[in-house]
Amino acid sequence: MSAKKAVILLSGGLDSATTLAVARYESFETYALSFLYGQRHHVEIDAAKEIAHRFGVSRHVILPIDLRQFGGSALTSDLPVPKDRSIETMSAEIPITYVPARNTIFLSFALAWAEVLGSGDIFLGVNALDYSGYPDCRPEYIEAFTRMASLATKAAVEEKHRLTIHTPLIHMTKAQIIRRGLDLGVDYALTTSCYDPTPEGNACDRCDSCLLRQRGFEEAGITDPRRAL
Amino acid sequence: MSAKKAVILLSGGLDSATTLAVARYESFETYALSFLYGQRHHVEIDAAKEIAHRFGVSRHVILPIDLRQFGGSALTSDLPVPKDRSIETMSAEIPITYVPARNTIFLSFALAWAEVLGSGDIFLGVNALDYSGYPDCRPEYIEAFTRMASLATKAAVEEKHRLTIHTPLIHMTKAQIIRRGLDLGVDYALTTSCYDPTPEGNACDRCDSCLLRQRGFEEAGITDPRRAL
Repeated sequence: MSAKKAVILLSGGLDSATTLAVARYESFETYALSFLYGQRHHVEIDAAKEIAHRFGVSRHVILPIDLRQFGGSALTSDLPVPKDRSIETMSAEIPITYVPARNTIFLSFALAWAEVLGSGDIFLGVNALDYSGYPDCRPEYIEAFTRMASLATKAAVEEKHRLTIHTPLIHMTKAQIIRRGLDLGVDYALTTSCYDPTPEGNACDRCDSCLLRQRGFEEAGITDPRRAL
Repeated sequence: MSAKKAVILLSGGLDSATTLAVARYESFETYALSFLYGQRHHVEIDAAKEIAHRFGVSRHVILPIDLRQFGGSALTSDLPVPKDRSIETMSAEIPITYVPARNTIFLSFALAWAEVLGSGDIFLGVNALDYSGYPDCRPEYIEAFTRMASLATKAAVEEKHRLTIHTPLIHMTKAQIIRRGLDLGVDYALTTSCYDPTPEGNACDRCDSCLLRQRGFEEAGITDPRRAL
């Protein structure tokens, strides 16, 4: 019997690389999907390519979608990325790095591709503990998307398969994610987390994403291998 | 007080042109959103531009998204478009012109733009009577998308506004839609419906969409003005 297929949303960051490793560990044939959405940290796409290659995905689609047309986020406009915020502040409010409806857009494309592949499995590396307070990372959002998808597609209506959105990291701390990834052979030197890298692609070390990564490696008691340029 | 803003999904066809007219009639400030998604009938984008201009939209965004990367539909691949099907056959099965997750993708982008605009209103010209049996045109799908959206965005979480997806045509026949549009000043000569036009942009007169349009004008007792090239 051939392996079940799954679509993995792969950003090039620590969480999605670990999620891809989990999907491979669970014996899925993997199809990676990344987006060039106008993010200022598009260096993450190079990271995504290397990670996809390393894990032997069957196909990696990098889709350009121009979210700069709408703006509304520090990641897709010239608004400054917040720096040096405490972890407490991060969880208290939704920051300007929130990209309107981003996960909804990403999951919608994943749903389309899964249907064409004859797959009912999507993997998404969202995390509801060590994160920036984004609404579209919460379990109740994932459940509502799944229910909507059960009415949206020909595959669902014809009962060919039910959609499952796998979120293996959703209840893990960053340190737990890192330990799990290392167990599964993730080379975190390939990953990039910074929202606001230098033109050369170096991390700023001060945005929310950098700070959450730093604390994760500290708590895991491991030195961050960092991405080599 | 300034007018409420709304995002209108505008394909360039008869239904979405009528939907834009309804939104204008209801005094919304309108923002039109169209997609170049790899459809073989991309002539509809020229139609969308003219319709948007004629109705004085505040902005018209035409977003390229390459759904040909995934294929799976006669509209986004080289699969042949079915011709000369009876209306009964159309409603009995979901045809190969179904584009996987298309309305979910379109609504997700509309949701993003609405949030940036500070709008809670999206207009979509779906129709559950004279249509091709697509699952993402049904009322229960629209309700599930709305519920998902209520958990997806910063605007929803912070209770700035609730999303309403307006589907003014959903329970109308094609003939009723045409009469309503004529009352509201829609010039149907600007619209195009064909899934499989000639290279010059002429309608094939034989695909589901052409046949539904023909029957609609016949039942309305009106001559189709057709799109002038």
